[in-house]
Amino acid sequence: MDLHPTPTAAPVVPSRGRLRPLTLGEVTVTGGPLLRRQQVNGTATLPHIEHWLEREGWIANFDLAAAGQLPAGRRGREFSDSEVYKYLEALAWEIGRTGDADLERRFHAVVARVAAAQEPDGYLNTEFGRPGQQPRWSDLPSGHELYCIGHLLQAAVARLRTRPDATDGLVEIARRAADLVCTVFGPDGLDAVCGHPEIEPALVEFGRATGDERDVAQAALFVARRGHGVLPDGWLGRTYYQDDVPVRSAQVLRGHAVRAGYLAAGAVDVAVEQGDDELLAALVAQWDTTVARRTYLTGGQGSHHEGEAFGDDWVLPPDRAYAETCAGIGSIMFSWRLLLARGGARYADLIERTLYNIVATSTSADGTRFFYANTLHQRRPGAPVPDDRVSPRASSTQRAPWFAVSCCPPNVARTLASLGTFLATVDDDGLQLHQYAPSTIATSLPDGTPVTVEIDTEYPRSGLVSVRIGADADRPWTLTLRVPAWAEGARVVVRSSEVTEQPAAPGTVAVRRTFRAGDVVELHLPVAPRFTAADPRIDATRGCLAVERGPEVLCLESVDLAAATAGALTDVADVRLDPSVPPEESGGDVVVRLRAARTSDRDWPYGAGVRAVADGEAIPVRLVPYHDWAERGPSTMRVWIPVTLG
Amino acid sequence: MDLHPTPTAAPVVPSRGRLRPLTLGEVTVTGGPLLRRQQVNGTATLPHIEHWLEREGWIANFDLAAAGQLPAGRRGREFSDSEVYKYLEALAWEIGRTGDADLERRFHAVVARVAAAQEPDGYLNTEFGRPGQQPRWSDLPSGHELYCIGHLLQAAVARLRTRPDATDGLVEIARRAADLVCTVFGPDGLDAVCGHPEIEPALVEFGRATGDERDVAQAALFVARRGHGVLPDGWLGRTYYQDDVPVRSAQVLRGHAVRAGYLAAGAVDVAVEQGDDELLAALVAQWDTTVARRTYLTGGQGSHHEGEAFGDDWVLPPDRAYAETCAGIGSIMFSWRLLLARGGARYADLIERTLYNIVATSTSADGTRFFYANTLHQRRPGAPVPDDRVSPRASSTQRAPWFAVSCCPPNVARTLASLGTFLATVDDDGLQLHQYAPSTIATSLPDGTPVTVEIDTEYPRSGLVSVRIGADADRPWTLTLRVPAWAEGARVVVRSSEVTEQPAAPGTVAVRRTFRAGDVVELHLPVAPRFTAADPRIDATRGCLAVERGPEVLCLESVDLAAATAGALTDVADVRLDPSVPPEESGGDVVVRLRAARTSDRDWPYGAGVRAVADGEAIPVRLVPYHDWAERGPSTMRVWIPVTLG
Repeated sequence: MDLHPTPTAAPVVPSRGRLRPLTLGEVTVTGGPLLRRQQVNGTATLPHIEHWLEREGWIANFDLAAAGQLPAGRRGREFSDSEVYKYLEALAWEIGRTGDADLERRFHAVVARVAAAQEPDGYLNTEFGRPGQQPRWSDLPSGHELYCIGHLLQAAVARLRTRPDATDGLVEIARRAADLVCTVFGPDGLDAVCGHPEIEPALVEFGRATGDERDVAQAALFVARRGHGVLPDGWLGRTYYQDDVPVRSAQVLRGHAVRAGYLAAGAVDVAVEQGDDELLAALVAQWDTTVARRTYLTGGQGSHHEGEAFGDDWVLPPDRAYAETCAGIGSIMFSWRLLLARGGARYADLIERTLYNIVATSTSADGTRFFYANTLHQRRPGAPVPDDRVSPRASSTQRAPWFAVSCCPPNVARTLASLGTFLATVDDDGLQLHQYAPSTIATSLPDGTPVTVEIDTEYPRSGLVSVRIGADADRPWTLTLRVPAWAEGARVVVRSSEVTEQPAAPGTVAVRRTFRAGDVVELHLPVAPRFTAADPRIDATRGCLAVERGPEVLCLESVDLAAATAGALTDVADVRLDPSVPPEESGGDVVVRLRAARTSDRDWPYGAGVRAVADGEAIPVRLVPYHDWAERGPSTMRVWIPVTLG
Repeated sequence: MDLHPTPTAAPVVPSRGRLRPLTLGEVTVTGGPLLRRQQVNGTATLPHIEHWLEREGWIANFDLAAAGQLPAGRRGREFSDSEVYKYLEALAWEIGRTGDADLERRFHAVVARVAAAQEPDGYLNTEFGRPGQQPRWSDLPSGHELYCIGHLLQAAVARLRTRPDATDGLVEIARRAADLVCTVFGPDGLDAVCGHPEIEPALVEFGRATGDERDVAQAALFVARRGHGVLPDGWLGRTYYQDDVPVRSAQVLRGHAVRAGYLAAGAVDVAVEQGDDELLAALVAQWDTTVARRTYLTGGQGSHHEGEAFGDDWVLPPDRAYAETCAGIGSIMFSWRLLLARGGARYADLIERTLYNIVATSTSADGTRFFYANTLHQRRPGAPVPDDRVSPRASSTQRAPWFAVSCCPPNVARTLASLGTFLATVDDDGLQLHQYAPSTIATSLPDGTPVTVEIDTEYPRSGLVSVRIGADADRPWTLTLRVPAWAEGARVVVRSSEVTEQPAAPGTVAVRRTFRAGDVVELHLPVAPRFTAADPRIDATRGCLAVERGPEVLCLESVDLAAATAGALTDVADVRLDPSVPPEESGGDVVVRLRAARTSDRDWPYGAGVRAVADGEAIPVRLVPYHDWAERGPSTMRVWIPVTLG
């Protein structure tokens, strides 16, 4: 077994662009919360996912297909095949990361079952096309056939880039499916698109990985077709699946948030591969507006439960926030591609925010329970979800082991397993660090200059990131460090033959020199907790403040309120924040001052002078990272804490 | 033709209860906004509805059924039959109100087409039961078969009580359908309920109207069955159709708001007919909590677009408020029944609020355009809806002529046509006035005491309601006047042989005397505009005030903001209210002081010190009644106006 991933062992490897991604072989995460998450993902989440895929019959659907027994025994929703493919993708990256032999065996076993279900012409879907099922491609708006194939291709990309010599056959399965797609939907084929984008980034990446330009051209065709009303005008409108406006003309992400993110990611891929700067500029503008007006403090996107969709600008209610986990992943996909294409700290800022506050929130610390939606305000203690219960997708108020629509768990799994490749990039002139984790990076610049660094940090608990150079260079190169937008007052210290220090404004800071092994570049980020206000056009957070610490959003959870008040206060509705006392660190905790403020019950909740009544002195109460909420049983929680009594 | 409605010409005629409803024959509305609405309803809305029912083929479905041509040509949703029945109900009340001969001809014509579709055993539904259709009763959760029959029964009740000698046959059609329901779903029949309540109040009322106790017993059975998990646990959960908790045990209305209101109304009917005080008390408590915690300032109920449902307590966002028109009507149905059963000004208060701010808002002044959902905050000017366009149910931001799900227009029509009967009631001791409109009331108390009054008022523009007694009484009786909860400082003046005056606290004020013809009782209600705050647990309105005037909620519409600022301000997001200057009346308008307060665009909408910047002096800006908004073309609008800059 080849334990060395290929030079392209990363999920996104554009053929051009401002920055080159690093690979699993070039970046090794050595500690910290990211490594812990990856380890839990590999040892707990992946077995958990396979257990549920088997339990719910979603892998067995392939067996039934192979045995000619469909549709009678088919289980799961029309897109359940995709969860199997995302699981395979996660396995492939995890095998690439760890070389785990047991996972490799599991991978082979599942692929064999998938392979047996593929039809001679390359078609592969357990929901369509057999006697008693709907015909192939007969429900493009909702059938998810191309979406499923997209995830198949992504799994194959992961496999090809981590085990190019593997004998399981997944890449060949994907090749046949992609060929069928290119034939059926090509320039002379069906003038149609899939209701759920995913085939677009998948075809581009599969084309990049296999070198087949036909795949890229097909993705470009799908992107170009969309937005011209090729899909029917359903009850949520064409906006739901981004068929309202051509990608090139759109101003902002809208409609179903996962669809929007995946489409945007695929469109960036197309723009990059085809050198389509106009399309790329349109996507940059869409990202800007979406981030400025349609994104939660957590990085969450998509505020409507109905249609799992973006709302209008400024519609970002903390309660009933949908902020689907998969939409967070779609946002990361979009941002990462723009970062590679254009550079810029803002993309990595949003990725970091989304990783710490959506991805890390969605999955429990033990890796076996998940949020599908990520609310910022929980008003009632949610009911615990039994270990053996499938939950409706977004209605559980506690993390749940599995969902009837279970897109999120395997999506997080594939993201975590490949996340090392999101830490850094290189260009002709040097190395760019985008995310900070204890790690080693060993790569070289295009001219052969070796770039080896060891990163030591307890970030985000500490704001000190220490980068030790591992190899002498014979020419100057540039180490670029991201300074998050919140990190006003950061500075960089270079410890070499002499010690120099410079301020580092938010954005990026570059240190250019002929580095010597042992040189250390320290980035000092101010991670003291801070109050954060919201644009008042986000009406739902008026009169409130949030508390952040570094990249982490904090929250008030009822269990801590009860502890601080000896049980006198148990409802997070019954407090007001004292904004005159900044949040403080105390014994590793972040503490704010809260005052009891109760509102009397009335027959009718409106009238002159209706307001809360403050009671007693403000007392210190601990906040916890939002990603840790609901880990201690049912509770109420809020990210945005009211300041005013009215 | 008998032009005198029967002694029971009212939609709800309980066999017992605290108050007796008056009938179309006893109450004549003689002027004011209610009469205008009724006239527009009769002359514009009813023809408009019939036009669209024909255009969309929903009446023609009955022709196809009679011709044995279903299911091929069937059009509309599975519940489209019910719109035809609600139209018939509206026609029946309107004919009862006006004796209009053309409407009578239309009524006969539509009934004949319905009649032809009824099957020999009484079954009547164009969506189920024929070869090629789903079998009868095979989709009780979503099929709406019993719901449709419920509306058929309500139409028959209206007809029976307004034209008991009519020859159209609608009552007989309904009788056969009700008999079938009682047989199929009776104690020895299917242990099931309909996913959408409506059959419950309909069966009780049909039983009251026809004297058949079997109908009432069947309604009681449906109410008793519900809440025990007799319906499947769908993706919105059993809460969606109130099958989560038995009616008797529930604490609050929840789930789909129209379903919840209709069920509660039917349950009150059952409790009253069966003398079930425990059930009635449970419903009173549910009403109390729903009004105290789950109702918009407008009276709107149901804050979620998803599932058209109630949210948790305090989830009442102004933007994306659903507040479906039909849920408002369901709320009126529930409140009116409790008012008859128990008395109490609060029920009439909510009815008034809902009439002025939901029912009156939903329909355009010309009676041919409708809101399905009634948002309290419109952030973008909505696109105009063409006259010939069917709109998705809740997505139009301007009133629309018709909807794919068009429950609301005929629901409003039937309500307006029968609304005169909601103005007043009698008991053994006198007359209770609940709603104030220019009208004459001629009735008698159980002992024969004649009670005749003429009500003169320009309410709600004026707060003076003048009640002139029309007949001498030979014994004292009590005139009870509702004093709305907002009317602090009201007073009553009695002008008889002498003039007396007394204060009238919110609730009811009673004037008991041996009235003489010509006596006048004046109620003086303070209708000066006022600021209203919201319970701070309704987080979405924090830092805002609304303005009300009498029963009317006012709003800021962008067209008025632009006019007041000569176009300098056009977005209702860009102002702050000066709370130190109370709203004033000026030339018939209500005016508040607003200050320009713009928020700078930023890359990321969160951070320390993010807030609006005030600019210039507060200037007077006109507010308009919420029910008049969007009558002047696309606009932005808000009911809750921010006070604070942050």
